[in-house]
Amino acid sequence: MRTALDAMGGDHAPQPNIDGAIAALQGDPNLEVVLVGEEGLLEDLVGKSGYSGERLEIRHADGVVEMCEKPTDALRSKPNCSIAVCWQMMASRDVDAVVSAGHTGAVVAAGLRTRLFLKGVKRPGIAVAVPTIAGQSVLMDVGANPAARPEHLYQYGIMGEIYAREVLEVQDVRVGLMNIGSEDGKGTELVQEAHALLSTRPLKDRYIGNVEGRGVYQGEADVIICEGFVGNVVLKVSEGVAQMMLGTVAKTVVENLSSEREHAGNLLRKMSQRFVHNESGGAPLLGIDGICIIGHGSSNAQSITNALRVATTFRDRRINSQIVEAIAAHKVS
Amino acid sequence: MRTALDAMGGDHAPQPNIDGAIAALQGDPNLEVVLVGEEGLLEDLVGKSGYSGERLEIRHADGVVEMCEKPTDALRSKPNCSIAVCWQMMASRDVDAVVSAGHTGAVVAAGLRTRLFLKGVKRPGIAVAVPTIAGQSVLMDVGANPAARPEHLYQYGIMGEIYAREVLEVQDVRVGLMNIGSEDGKGTELVQEAHALLSTRPLKDRYIGNVEGRGVYQGEADVIICEGFVGNVVLKVSEGVAQMMLGTVAKTVVENLSSEREHAGNLLRKMSQRFVHNESGGAPLLGIDGICIIGHGSSNAQSITNALRVATTFRDRRINSQIVEAIAAHKVS
Repeated sequence: MRTALDAMGGDHAPQPNIDGAIAALQGDPNLEVVLVGEEGLLEDLVGKSGYSGERLEIRHADGVVEMCEKPTDALRSKPNCSIAVCWQMMASRDVDAVVSAGHTGAVVAAGLRTRLFLKGVKRPGIAVAVPTIAGQSVLMDVGANPAARPEHLYQYGIMGEIYAREVLEVQDVRVGLMNIGSEDGKGTELVQEAHALLSTRPLKDRYIGNVEGRGVYQGEADVIICEGFVGNVVLKVSEGVAQMMLGTVAKTVVENLSSEREHAGNLLRKMSQRFVHNESGGAPLLGIDGICIIGHGSSNAQSITNALRVATTFRDRRINSQIVEAIAAHKVS
Repeated sequence: MRTALDAMGGDHAPQPNIDGAIAALQGDPNLEVVLVGEEGLLEDLVGKSGYSGERLEIRHADGVVEMCEKPTDALRSKPNCSIAVCWQMMASRDVDAVVSAGHTGAVVAAGLRTRLFLKGVKRPGIAVAVPTIAGQSVLMDVGANPAARPEHLYQYGIMGEIYAREVLEVQDVRVGLMNIGSEDGKGTELVQEAHALLSTRPLKDRYIGNVEGRGVYQGEADVIICEGFVGNVVLKVSEGVAQMMLGTVAKTVVENLSSEREHAGNLLRKMSQRFVHNESGGAPLLGIDGICIIGHGSSNAQSITNALRVATTFRDRRINSQIVEAIAAHKVS
C-alpha cells in the first residue's frame, strides 16, 4: 500500500501530518507514505523526527490551498500545490491512495478534475461518519456534488451501504433518506424521486425510507442519504450545536460546582472528544477510481494515522470492486 | 385583540392550551381568546378551571389533524377540524390571529388554502428563533415553502429583518444567507441568485453575506435565510444534537459525580430549558394577511401563553403594515 499524504493540508500542518505518518508506518510494515509538500521544510522536519526508515518518501509541491481560498482559483494559480500533486500521483498510478486534511473543496475539486470516476458511477460523493446516541451513522453526500439528481442519491445509497458494512463494520446496514417528514410524498421533487428509486429497486431490502433531522442522531439509520448542500449544512450545524452545548455545560454546570468541579470538567473534556474531534479516521470520497480520504481540518497526529489506516482498510476490503459490481447490478438509466 | 387558539393542537392538548389561554387573559385585559375544538370537552374543562370571565369563548370544531397524518389528506377528510376552523375565522375577519401548537404542516397547509397573502408577498415562510451562544437568531423559512425561488428568499430577508427588529427587539439586525462556504460564488444556483439579490438591493446595508452551518450557533447573523427543506432539516438536526448532548452529559458526567451529583443534575435540567423547550413564544408564519403563530408540539401552558402574547405584540408593532411597505419598496419582478 502506497499512500500520498498532503503534508501541508490541515490547520496544524505539517508537524502532525509527519508524526501521524511515522506512527502509521510503525504500525503497518506494508505501508509506504509519500509526504507531499515543501521539500526543504519536510526534509528538515523528518530529519528532526529521528525516523530513518525507507518507507517515508518526500515529493515536492509548490504551496497549499489556504482555507480562505476559492478552490478553483487556487488550483489555477497554484497548479503544483500539495493536493494537486497528490492527485497527479494517483492519476499516474504512482500511489494507491490520497489522504488530506486540507481544504475539502480543494481536495474534491482537484480530484474531480482527474475524472478518475469508477465505472458506472455518475458523481462521487463524500461519506462522513457522525456520532449518534446509538454509535455512529454515515451521512452522504456532504458537499462533493452541489447539483445532485435522483440517480446520484440512489448511487450514494449503494456506495454508502458498502462503506458502512465493510469499513465501519455495521451489520445489516439500514439506509435512510434525509427528509422533512417520515411519510411518503414528503419533500422536494429530488427527494421524492430518489425515494421512488430507492423503494422499488434491489436496494429496497436495505432501505428504510425517510429519516427526519431528529432521527439522524437517534441512530434511526446507519447511512443517511442527502444532497451535498443539505449534508454540508447538517454537518456544520451539528458541529456548531455540539460545541455550543459543551461550552454552555462547562459554563453553567461545571463552573457552578465546588468540590467536584475539576472531576466534572475532566469528564466533560473526555466526553467532548467523541463529538468535537474526528476520531473516526476521515471521510472517503466514494466513487473515485482510487482511494481518497479527507481528514478534518483540525486533524492531529492521531487523526492522520487513523486516516492512513482507513485508506489501507479501503483497499484490503476491495471497496471499489464491490461498488463497481453493485452499481452494474443496479443500473439506473 | 381577538385570537383563535387551536385548543386541540399539541402533544398535551387541550389542558395546557386552556390553562395557557386563561393565564394570557389574566395578564392582558384587552385580549379575547376563542378556544377552537370539541365543544363538550372544552366546556367541561373550562368549567373545571374556575375561570368565569367573558373573554374566553368556545367554538366547536370536528376533530384535529393528528401528528402522523398527511396534512392534505387530513384537511380533506376533516374539513371542520380545529385548525381549519381557526383559519376560517381569520379569513372572515372574526379573529385577528390564529395560534396553534398542532401539526405544523397542517397549520401551514390550512393557512395557504385561504390565500390570505399580504400584498406583494410571493410566498409566506415560517420564522423560528433558535438559541445561539450569543442569544438567539431567526431561521427562515423552516418548511412552509418547499419550492423556494431566489425572490422568495429575498423577501424572507425583508420579513425576517422586521420580525427580529420589532418582535425580538434586536438592534441593527444582521441578515445572513445559509450557505456551504462564506465566499461569494458558493452553493447552489438558488442561493447564488438570492445572494446577488440581497447584495445589490436596498437590503444590502443589513445583509452580511453567506453564513455557514457552524456560524448559525456562533450568532454570526440575527436572521438566517434558507429554503424550507434546508431550514426544516437544520431545525430538527439541531434539536437532535442538543438532546443527544444533554443526554450524554447526564450519563457520562453527572452520573459519575458523587457528592455534587444532584446539584449538577439540577443545573443541567435548568440549562436544558433554554435549548429543548421552546420558551420564545412560537414561530410566526410571515407574509400572511393576518397573524399566525405556530407553537412547538410539546407546548405547555406557559408556551401557549407566550404564543398568545407574541400574537398581540405582532399586531401592536404593526408588523404586517411594515412588511407591505418594505416589500413595495423592494419590489422584485
